[in-house]
Amino acid sequence: MPSATSHATATNGLSQAQTITREEIFTAHLGGKLSVELTQPLEDRRDLSIAYTPGVAQVSAAIAEDPALAESHTWASRLVAVVSDGTAVLGLGNIGASASLPVMEGKSALFKRFAGLNSIPIVINTTDVDEIVETIVRISPSFGAVNLEDISAPRCFEVERRLIEALDMPVMHDDQHGTAVVVLAALTNAVKVVGKQLRDLRIVIAGAGSAGIAVAEILLAVGITDLIVIDSKGSLHTERDDIEHMKLDMAQRSNPRGVSGGTEAALAGADVFIGVSSSQVPEAHIASMASGSIVFALSNPNPEIAPDVAQKHAAVVATGRSDFPNQINNVLAFPGIFRGALDAGARRITTEMKLAAAQAIADLVPNPAFDEIVPNPFAPGVAEAVARAVMGAVQPGA
Amino acid sequence: MPSATSHATATNGLSQAQTITREEIFTAHLGGKLSVELTQPLEDRRDLSIAYTPGVAQVSAAIAEDPALAESHTWASRLVAVVSDGTAVLGLGNIGASASLPVMEGKSALFKRFAGLNSIPIVINTTDVDEIVETIVRISPSFGAVNLEDISAPRCFEVERRLIEALDMPVMHDDQHGTAVVVLAALTNAVKVVGKQLRDLRIVIAGAGSAGIAVAEILLAVGITDLIVIDSKGSLHTERDDIEHMKLDMAQRSNPRGVSGGTEAALAGADVFIGVSSSQVPEAHIASMASGSIVFALSNPNPEIAPDVAQKHAAVVATGRSDFPNQINNVLAFPGIFRGALDAGARRITTEMKLAAAQAIADLVPNPAFDEIVPNPFAPGVAEAVARAVMGAVQPGA
Repeated sequence: MPSATSHATATNGLSQAQTITREEIFTAHLGGKLSVELTQPLEDRRDLSIAYTPGVAQVSAAIAEDPALAESHTWASRLVAVVSDGTAVLGLGNIGASASLPVMEGKSALFKRFAGLNSIPIVINTTDVDEIVETIVRISPSFGAVNLEDISAPRCFEVERRLIEALDMPVMHDDQHGTAVVVLAALTNAVKVVGKQLRDLRIVIAGAGSAGIAVAEILLAVGITDLIVIDSKGSLHTERDDIEHMKLDMAQRSNPRGVSGGTEAALAGADVFIGVSSSQVPEAHIASMASGSIVFALSNPNPEIAPDVAQKHAAVVATGRSDFPNQINNVLAFPGIFRGALDAGARRITTEMKLAAAQAIADLVPNPAFDEIVPNPFAPGVAEAVARAVMGAVQPGA
Repeated sequence: MPSATSHATATNGLSQAQTITREEIFTAHLGGKLSVELTQPLEDRRDLSIAYTPGVAQVSAAIAEDPALAESHTWASRLVAVVSDGTAVLGLGNIGASASLPVMEGKSALFKRFAGLNSIPIVINTTDVDEIVETIVRISPSFGAVNLEDISAPRCFEVERRLIEALDMPVMHDDQHGTAVVVLAALTNAVKVVGKQLRDLRIVIAGAGSAGIAVAEILLAVGITDLIVIDSKGSLHTERDDIEHMKLDMAQRSNPRGVSGGTEAALAGADVFIGVSSSQVPEAHIASMASGSIVFALSNPNPEIAPDVAQKHAAVVATGRSDFPNQINNVLAFPGIFRGALDAGARRITTEMKLAAAQAIADLVPNPAFDEIVPNPFAPGVAEAVARAVMGAVQPGA
């Protein structure tokens, strides 16, 4: 499920995929997608004496005396580690650390391309939560922020929580919060199109993995109350005795009408469907939603319901695919969120910062329409606008 | 001691240092010395669909099926991790992980500049050998080689030994072996200048830290037998009851005449003095050496004996400084050694490969003279020549 949700929100597109050959993809990956370059020339002994010994000793000695200087005089403080254990990679599942590397290299490339941030993939060949946390903490002087990626639920929640506690730097599991931020941005504009109020919405989320829980959390944070989260066995509610910690906690804070059953019961009269589940939803359930309904079918490559079918019943339809309008794409969020957090020197990525990021993304579409609720990720200035908003939401001393 | 020895062999130079201002050094370090760049354009949705989802899924799936593809289709297999715990940094000693970062960034920059290899610094905030080894093993799918740097002796020996055992990739502690290779190269040419044979030499090494032990090892490997290693308490010999494992082992394989005492006793009639000790040697002891003597006073910034003083008695003098002829500089060795090992797909850096590297460096000086026994590191083709020699020394299946 996290695979479908997280990368549903990255760029996709069946029609594009069809025009891109396998050979072209493999050729583009030969030797990898990243390189490390020098920021200063190193052409003679003098350059060497500045960048290496003896000159570098003065910088190291200064940092030893005043650790804060490491932030300004090394690359680490603005370097984003893209960290994965390879357990929930795209739609491929638990393929392991090495096989996840092309995705992590891609993520690092996006950090550079969209936010100008240096980033390195760190893939870990253990799936033990204690060991993952311990490992990242030990090497943490090497970087300034952690983007967790493609770690399976429910382990991802604990890895993130414990790293946030242990590290004095921004840590964010993008499959959760990047997705949540872009969904909120898209929903903010979608309600304008249908003339409804965000807080009045009845919302159904199909999928209770990393993205489903995080989307639910951000919607609760903006004051939405009528929210139902559905896992593979039905709606989360407090009478369920088959759900563990995270889901039980969510059941206690959502589903105020105590709806049980699956999408049929939950979607009747609902305003919004958000699919982050890799499962399918029958057309009849979508048809049973309230008028002016909003459908975000984000599973990739197969949305929970085909967008052209959804459009027969819903006023606004979004997917994770690039070959339909309204692509819900994490790349709208994570580069700017990390950029803003690092620019502000923030030690945490708070809910306020995520909400500010969502609002900034929404505001980049001045006149939302049924087929334009999110900006194009290649539009100039997206990450910069998000970063500014995130900086503005940083609490002093945070 | 390791600090003095390892970086004695990196570029240095008092006269240069005097002309480079502190401000110039700190300005050059602002924001760090490395950046991560993209190897492919990422300008539109099509590019994104190749480098990221959905295209990248095909590459990840292929690696999951055939792990060998990670070598060709990610950057990791040719990425050198420069790993340190910050315990023996330059002449600064145990300054910790963060403060060591400028040195590690510099090392990564040298890997790119001299060997075209991508490299990232990984600094670790534990000094426990078990934890260092465990941490590097866990993140090892992220890279293809390990350059250990500035880890204090005797821990450095065990860290290197255990990582070589645990990882199927080249691992080398440069403070040991980079130094040893360049010393052997320089000595190979110095004996030509003085008309002696390598195996006949009586050699004294002052310093029994990482560099001292490694230099002794490589000299034993080329068949030198009359070799005395001196630590702060005198010559290593089998009657010493105050020396631990590594030094005792070296005592058993060196000092065949059982010489005790310090440099006075050891240097009388010796052909070669190699200082990697941070200590000073009296002029009278150097004067007592055999005619046609060779002095490598490699401590930085203060050689064991001033080179102009040494020159009064010795036929060939070398230091670690760039303001005297014959600079013994690790940068002559490590870029080409790693490049050759990676080009060959070698899983180990063997003694044969190190000996080949030393010979290649020596051969780059066609007509050795008393003031020219090693090549200029900026001479074109040094790393390439070393890499070719190293490749040629790789055993099939190694």
